[in-house]
Amino acid sequence: MSVIVMKFGGSSVGTPERMRRVAQRIVDRKREGNRCLVVVSAMGDTTDELIDLSKQICDGAPPTREMDMLLTTGEQVSVALLAMAIQSLGEEARSYTGWQTGIYTEAVHGKARISHIEPKRVQDALEKDCIVIVAGFQGMTEEGEITTLGRGGSDTTAVAVAAAIKADLCEIYTDVEGVYSTDPRIVKCARKLNEISYDEMLELANLGAAVLHPRAVECAKLNQVRLVVRSSFNHNEGTLVKEEAAMEQGIVVSGIAYDKNVARISILGVPERPGQLAKVFTALANQQVDVDIIVQSGVQDAADFSFTVGSGDLDKAMTIIASIKETVGYRETTSETGLVKVSIVGAGMVSNPGVAAKMFEAISELGISINMVSTSEIKVSCVIPNSRLNEVIQTLHTAYGLDTDTTVSVGGPQDRR
Amino acid sequence: MSVIVMKFGGSSVGTPERMRRVAQRIVDRKREGNRCLVVVSAMGDTTDELIDLSKQICDGAPPTREMDMLLTTGEQVSVALLAMAIQSLGEEARSYTGWQTGIYTEAVHGKARISHIEPKRVQDALEKDCIVIVAGFQGMTEEGEITTLGRGGSDTTAVAVAAAIKADLCEIYTDVEGVYSTDPRIVKCARKLNEISYDEMLELANLGAAVLHPRAVECAKLNQVRLVVRSSFNHNEGTLVKEEAAMEQGIVVSGIAYDKNVARISILGVPERPGQLAKVFTALANQQVDVDIIVQSGVQDAADFSFTVGSGDLDKAMTIIASIKETVGYRETTSETGLVKVSIVGAGMVSNPGVAAKMFEAISELGISINMVSTSEIKVSCVIPNSRLNEVIQTLHTAYGLDTDTTVSVGGPQDRR
Repeated sequence: MSVIVMKFGGSSVGTPERMRRVAQRIVDRKREGNRCLVVVSAMGDTTDELIDLSKQICDGAPPTREMDMLLTTGEQVSVALLAMAIQSLGEEARSYTGWQTGIYTEAVHGKARISHIEPKRVQDALEKDCIVIVAGFQGMTEEGEITTLGRGGSDTTAVAVAAAIKADLCEIYTDVEGVYSTDPRIVKCARKLNEISYDEMLELANLGAAVLHPRAVECAKLNQVRLVVRSSFNHNEGTLVKEEAAMEQGIVVSGIAYDKNVARISILGVPERPGQLAKVFTALANQQVDVDIIVQSGVQDAADFSFTVGSGDLDKAMTIIASIKETVGYRETTSETGLVKVSIVGAGMVSNPGVAAKMFEAISELGISINMVSTSEIKVSCVIPNSRLNEVIQTLHTAYGLDTDTTVSVGGPQDRR
Repeated sequence: MSVIVMKFGGSSVGTPERMRRVAQRIVDRKREGNRCLVVVSAMGDTTDELIDLSKQICDGAPPTREMDMLLTTGEQVSVALLAMAIQSLGEEARSYTGWQTGIYTEAVHGKARISHIEPKRVQDALEKDCIVIVAGFQGMTEEGEITTLGRGGSDTTAVAVAAAIKADLCEIYTDVEGVYSTDPRIVKCARKLNEISYDEMLELANLGAAVLHPRAVECAKLNQVRLVVRSSFNHNEGTLVKEEAAMEQGIVVSGIAYDKNVARISILGVPERPGQLAKVFTALANQQVDVDIIVQSGVQDAADFSFTVGSGDLDKAMTIIASIKETVGYRETTSETGLVKVSIVGAGMVSNPGVAAKMFEAISELGISINMVSTSEIKVSCVIPNSRLNEVIQTLHTAYGLDTDTTVSVGGPQDRR
């Protein structure tokens, strides 16, 4: 008998009718002979409504401890209703909050990380042939404080619980068919991937392919949890995420992702002294500003740095940098918005030279100058003007043979570089 | 420094604006030099909305365990928002669910009784000068299951927590000024009582004076918690409920209550055999039918029983009684609705003969025949036709000198019997 974790997001359970449909799906999965533990998010707009309520109470930012108390009720409502819906269909079901599931987190509110899980209680229920419904997105500190896991929290709950109970599979149900080679809203002939490796998925997830949160993928990789991303509306196969995906012949690049949340900052004329870079990036990190791509160009005795931050962090970052002008001794700063980061991702890149060159060439042929570049073993990212995003993605998708109607040549990827 | 428990019901915190007003009231109380623990119910219609959601999910009665999971979110939302509102006013505040407060209950869903409270966590917070906000109506079993306390639950939470932390006072804030001599909607010159004893309050509460739930009064009496019922809209003094209320001179009857939820059942021609009464009332008790007034009239070898049940239980009770017809061997049954139970309550009755007689006389002078009678040390109840309720209450209110504009004669109550 397989143990399966099934995760449903807020829109899948957004109305009582959808909730009943999800219940039927879970019951079917159980009756196929599986033990099912279900992780569920808050119904539809519940979280937004709760946030709205808090804004009517607080003038400033609400205290994070109390926000966690408030928001965790959303999932608690979902799990209770889903358990009722399943029981209506004649199967045993029990709902559990985060703390009842034994999900312990660090003592941080709003974005706690899971420290460990003591799943005995839900395991006992599973062994009694009961369908277990767990509230996603939430946990408890050692001191008994209620915490939330922040963005991607429910995906992370599903994967972490799957690891803790040694589930055979963790299924993430979404409103899309699986993981695509790129955003199907931009590229009509985007292909659904049958398999993808954790690392590739991680790059794609980090790069804004919203289907799975990077934290969840990281957690899956760390604990070797077999993940499936599939549609909650049909029974198609979805995408399997696992350690090493089967290489599809001729496919070096698995997917193309983009991230519009990009702003560039340049610090010009930084005197060459040890520790200058550290000063800047420590100051930013201390204020929780995440820095992504960093480029340094040295010019005799003084260097220029450019780096990207999230668009929402730009003003904050500029203020921080201004505050350390004297310490660092730089000449001036500039910043730029209206940018997008486009990335090609593929485990096959490692053993295939020239993949990056092909990307640069394709972009330059469109008459677009590349602003910044960053590479990893399985990824190449270019920062370009936002206005040219669609044509770039379409061009790259075709260039790397990802279009569904493209015949993949047997000669291999070398030909197309 | 006094420790005060303050309880606010759902309508007092029904909107963000009201919530802020309650927060201000709590902060004021704290700044007077008190330590404050606040118990709060779910906002306005939240509970009804959640019940409605469950009905959209379940065809039949929803499983009680899951209903408790669902409904307890209502109070959790309230406590979080109230803590935020108080923090906005510059005072430290922390919210706690039932389980976080250490409220343990028996393992029953929907109407659990509190078994014990381990209040260390909230006491520590109080000692750090923090305003503590506790979710009413909820607790946890020893096994970590979430339970609700059922009707009157938040009042009971307030009193039980007040007892556990040895609070100096437990204030119940309501939408009325305090406990009245009778329903002010019926009797315009009903008087607000300054003091009342636990026993009197218990009778009044049981008899449908909805201002305080009998469970909460019982708990207060048992633990000698000083209770105040007062308005959440103004600063008037309210009614103090304590062991022995100061006798107001000339006042024997403190209040007049009524209960419209009354149906009469008569079982006629019951053969005289030992244990006949027990058979009937055990059968009813086994099916959770509460029986109130019982009257037996014997007629040679066979007896007639009459008793009252809640109107909603009438059909169920009649079915149960029909099912034991052969065992008991009675001749026939009759039933009657459209009744009301009117009761006079007063600790002063014990030492003042003739109080009941005065009641019977007043009612019969109105040309009303009394259906059934029941008495206790501090109470006399008469069952009469519902249609005559208002005039009976008005008449009794005046007869016992309860009207606010009545000059209480120094000669004492004897005169008026």
